[in-house]
Amino acid sequence: MSIKLGILGATGKVGIELLKLLEKCTDLPLEIPPQLFGTSRSAGRKIKFKNQELIVEESSGQNFAGLDLLISCANGEVSEKLIPLALKQGVKLVIDTDSYYRMEANVPLITSGVNDEDINWHQGIIAGPNCSTAQLIIPLKVLHEAFGLKRVVVSTYQSVSGAGKAAMDSLFEELREITDKQSANESLKPLKKDQFAFNVIPKISKFMENGYTKEEWKVIAETRKMLHAPELAITCTAVRVPVLVGHSESINVELLSPASLEQVITALKAHENLEVWAEKETYPTPIEVAGTEPVHIGRIRKDESTNNAFDMWVVADNLLIGAALNALRIAISAYKKNKI
Amino acid sequence: MSIKLGILGATGKVGIELLKLLEKCTDLPLEIPPQLFGTSRSAGRKIKFKNQELIVEESSGQNFAGLDLLISCANGEVSEKLIPLALKQGVKLVIDTDSYYRMEANVPLITSGVNDEDINWHQGIIAGPNCSTAQLIIPLKVLHEAFGLKRVVVSTYQSVSGAGKAAMDSLFEELREITDKQSANESLKPLKKDQFAFNVIPKISKFMENGYTKEEWKVIAETRKMLHAPELAITCTAVRVPVLVGHSESINVELLSPASLEQVITALKAHENLEVWAEKETYPTPIEVAGTEPVHIGRIRKDESTNNAFDMWVVADNLLIGAALNALRIAISAYKKNKI
Repeated sequence: MSIKLGILGATGKVGIELLKLLEKCTDLPLEIPPQLFGTSRSAGRKIKFKNQELIVEESSGQNFAGLDLLISCANGEVSEKLIPLALKQGVKLVIDTDSYYRMEANVPLITSGVNDEDINWHQGIIAGPNCSTAQLIIPLKVLHEAFGLKRVVVSTYQSVSGAGKAAMDSLFEELREITDKQSANESLKPLKKDQFAFNVIPKISKFMENGYTKEEWKVIAETRKMLHAPELAITCTAVRVPVLVGHSESINVELLSPASLEQVITALKAHENLEVWAEKETYPTPIEVAGTEPVHIGRIRKDESTNNAFDMWVVADNLLIGAALNALRIAISAYKKNKI
Repeated sequence: MSIKLGILGATGKVGIELLKLLEKCTDLPLEIPPQLFGTSRSAGRKIKFKNQELIVEESSGQNFAGLDLLISCANGEVSEKLIPLALKQGVKLVIDTDSYYRMEANVPLITSGVNDEDINWHQGIIAGPNCSTAQLIIPLKVLHEAFGLKRVVVSTYQSVSGAGKAAMDSLFEELREITDKQSANESLKPLKKDQFAFNVIPKISKFMENGYTKEEWKVIAETRKMLHAPELAITCTAVRVPVLVGHSESINVELLSPASLEQVITALKAHENLEVWAEKETYPTPIEVAGTEPVHIGRIRKDESTNNAFDMWVVADNLLIGAALNALRIAISAYKKNKI
């Protein structure tokens, strides 16, 4: 069996990444090239795919009939409106990279390699997690299974691409303006409130009543949902840093069962989507690992102040693992399970 | 009584900051303008101080006689060699901003406002802490006194000025090169290993046998020394970010006694060196607070996953609180205690 695939939001950053991945993917047999959907602004745009030119259609909400699978790389408003229409028109599975459906009880939230078994109970929609959760959840799942998680404390260092292309351009322009006109000194004054350049911003998304941001709460709630551990003790501080691509996370984990450093490293090394930097003096950085598919984990060490606790440092390409790559892996997994 | 002050390493970043602070300081009566010492390269340089021009002398190690107080803003090698010579020549107190003497049992390690009482037992040398410890220790001291600390997990976001002027220039040049020649896109390739630009680096200073870096270990050991809590459970991951001035820290604290969010905020507000950002939707960022004297603390919230735990975000000017300002405050405190 081969499938008919549609991509919603095909001209955005995640859509473009997904098309690049699909070009070299051999695990998902497509009957015809993917059908591309975008806003009225993108409609008519031509996008190269293998040796063909695909034309972007406007997603009216009425033109999904005939598709088996729709991957949505669009934002929440679009997901909210169009995904139910796609299901009504007979699309068998919609994989949504946005947050809109993630916490719905009847929507499985999946990071491939972590909880693919939840694909089995989908009712038409599968959601992928937030980019900062997607890379965190892989080592956490390994440690949860092997030793049990007692408590997790996460601080993130998130690149501006998480906020879209405009944010990347904004960082670049700010930096160009400052480095053209000034020299490196201590009296550099802010250009504007919450500038990205030469700054770190401890606020991503909106504040909630309890003082967390929505971004931080996503990490907490999505981790609990994917691990099926609704009471898991986990907290997060999410911070924007002036990096273009690649999210980094400093993670402290307390385990339920005693484990040696060697046992922790061995367990992590066994996961196919993790690249473990265990050699002395090595550590992943975002500029080095951007563009690669694994979740990179390094600086793994015993937190000597606390029983069964470990510190670690996780870096991944947020556009890949955080969205396009995970969506494609979910599609492949669902295909293999006969769930499309 | 007025005092004769010498400044070692007067032409470096910290020395310059100290001179600026001294110009407006009225709490430390100087008999004559400070005597400035530098390397042979800096000798002869003229530095403006109030309406005078001071001339930098080469620090031969033999020209400290007659000084009451020497503040060393030089590096560890210079401290190691020259401070004993200064004491032999009768200097009553040396305040060292470097790490060389910090962990010596007979050297008090002081953050003014935290453990000034330790000034009383100095034997000629007082050390100031590492910049990343200096801003962390103030809120920790408040919480330790008010509620007791059970466990602390810290992740830092440290500016390149912590690595000196050359690192600041290096970041600036890397950024200028990249933004002149390229545009913001995902395929930006690294210029070199461990570049500062568009990157975060989870390694400051050297690695130790236990997997921590020396920078991280300083935070742990210095905190324990200043709080007189040698067994305190505290861990740290120290990370360099592309910010010029201002270190930020994401801190998770478990307390021994129950405390409400309001009680925590009230306790922190009572410390004169802390500026608490408790209003909704406000938070300190390094570019905003660089150049200011307080340690800024915001994002204070209950870690809802754990009993008596709180998350918070601390930002300060690392050149001030981390070195020059703390050295001056120690000097004033020692003067008031008649310990110079």
